[in-house]
Amino acid sequence: MPVSLPMSLPMSLPETDPTPPRPVIVLVEPQLAENIGMTARAMGNFGLADLRLVAPKGGWPKKGVREAASGATHVLDGVRVFATVAQAVADLTYVLATTARERGQMKRVFGPDAAMRDVTGRLARGERVGILFGRERVGLSNDEVSLADAIVTFPVDPRHASLNLAQSVLLVSYEWRRAADLARLPFGGGMRSPPAPREALLSLFESLEAALDAAGYYPPEKRGGMVRNMRDMLHRMAMTEQDVRTFRGALRALTRRPPEA
Amino acid sequence: MPVSLPMSLPMSLPETDPTPPRPVIVLVEPQLAENIGMTARAMGNFGLADLRLVAPKGGWPKKGVREAASGATHVLDGVRVFATVAQAVADLTYVLATTARERGQMKRVFGPDAAMRDVTGRLARGERVGILFGRERVGLSNDEVSLADAIVTFPVDPRHASLNLAQSVLLVSYEWRRAADLARLPFGGGMRSPPAPREALLSLFESLEAALDAAGYYPPEKRGGMVRNMRDMLHRMAMTEQDVRTFRGALRALTRRPPEA
Repeated sequence: MPVSLPMSLPMSLPETDPTPPRPVIVLVEPQLAENIGMTARAMGNFGLADLRLVAPKGGWPKKGVREAASGATHVLDGVRVFATVAQAVADLTYVLATTARERGQMKRVFGPDAAMRDVTGRLARGERVGILFGRERVGLSNDEVSLADAIVTFPVDPRHASLNLAQSVLLVSYEWRRAADLARLPFGGGMRSPPAPREALLSLFESLEAALDAAGYYPPEKRGGMVRNMRDMLHRMAMTEQDVRTFRGALRALTRRPPEA
Repeated sequence: MPVSLPMSLPMSLPETDPTPPRPVIVLVEPQLAENIGMTARAMGNFGLADLRLVAPKGGWPKKGVREAASGATHVLDGVRVFATVAQAVADLTYVLATTARERGQMKRVFGPDAAMRDVTGRLARGERVGILFGRERVGLSNDEVSLADAIVTFPVDPRHASLNLAQSVLLVSYEWRRAADLARLPFGGGMRSPPAPREALLSLFESLEAALDAAGYYPPEKRGGMVRNMRDMLHRMAMTEQDVRTFRGALRALTRRPPEA
């Protein structure tokens, strides 16, 4: 069965989201401009803006990072660089560490969905929250994980557990937007034309059946079942008023007598 | 309040997932090796494997695609290339088109979560499902969207709506894994040591308070409230048996008389 959808989503959204408090993203010693740019883009896609870098390898800013960020230059323009993780999280009251593997640390472990539900609650109560993401190849050190209150990990296929850095930021940003109740679709599946009244539909069925009668389509002993089958099929289209007019026009064209030569 | 987590997640997962039927990912005229490789990696992260390419720009295979795919070479090895979208979806029974913008088409519109719940149901009933992703810059044409049964779009910030190709494949793959009920975390937050019995905790509190009494820490008229405050604080640690032993050891070290010189 198709999932039912609200059909009355707004067709246009206001220019600016209401801006609830948002978590900070902290990349620890990121190396590739591509990954930092894609991280900024992913944050922008889901409404995050505060990006902090700890000792980016090769310095900052990096060549190529703006291209990879696509339109998210506001995120790059706001980047703050720190020498250590402790400095990057100094003003925060709650810190999550992302990691793909067990560290033997006695911390709570969340998936990105549960983590962001918890985080939106904390932010609403005035906490300042950050999420640590480790180096491309080796992630966070155990000492860096020790600076966090809890751990976030991802429900990956254990045979292919290595998520790209920007991909893991994307999942956290996506889940934050959902948890913050901002996850509206940019457009809906609303029909431009209202659903057809039964009367219009029945009248269309009768016109179609009359045309098929005239064309000798139905074997008389099977007509009843064939009519019902075709009505079932047409009902599944859930026709709008416009659909009925379109169908009638096509039927008229098919049954019109050819012009005299 | 922290979100409660199951504390008994298995610490190791079987080598192979059970493999339920899975949707096919179709990239239409992808250009960048990086994006195709990252798409394969994202699919592998969440257990998808069937990747089809329609007329990849610059031909196939592409230089650099294996590096971008990281470990997901099995996805690349299985890639099938088609000349047209119609050929790529010919054997499928249900097709979704991803698009960031309204097309004026009278189709149902899903977010990735609702779309994948619908898709797992269809797959379980024997349908063969594919999801179309358009070109990096211009997406799918309206004629290509017309080949689909319904539309998937993403709950992005409308001011920064442009998702990277591999990022949108990642979100669909992640939501498929969740909808298919395979989204287990690779490790849990289970404590290595059982929670401390109240008796051990109370005994620890009493030792601590006796040491503080001996050190002259409490003004007599405030002792009752100060003891309660510190017990509240220590209760929030939800100590394990091992935590109590650790705390006792540290307390003993602090109260030990210094060795005679």
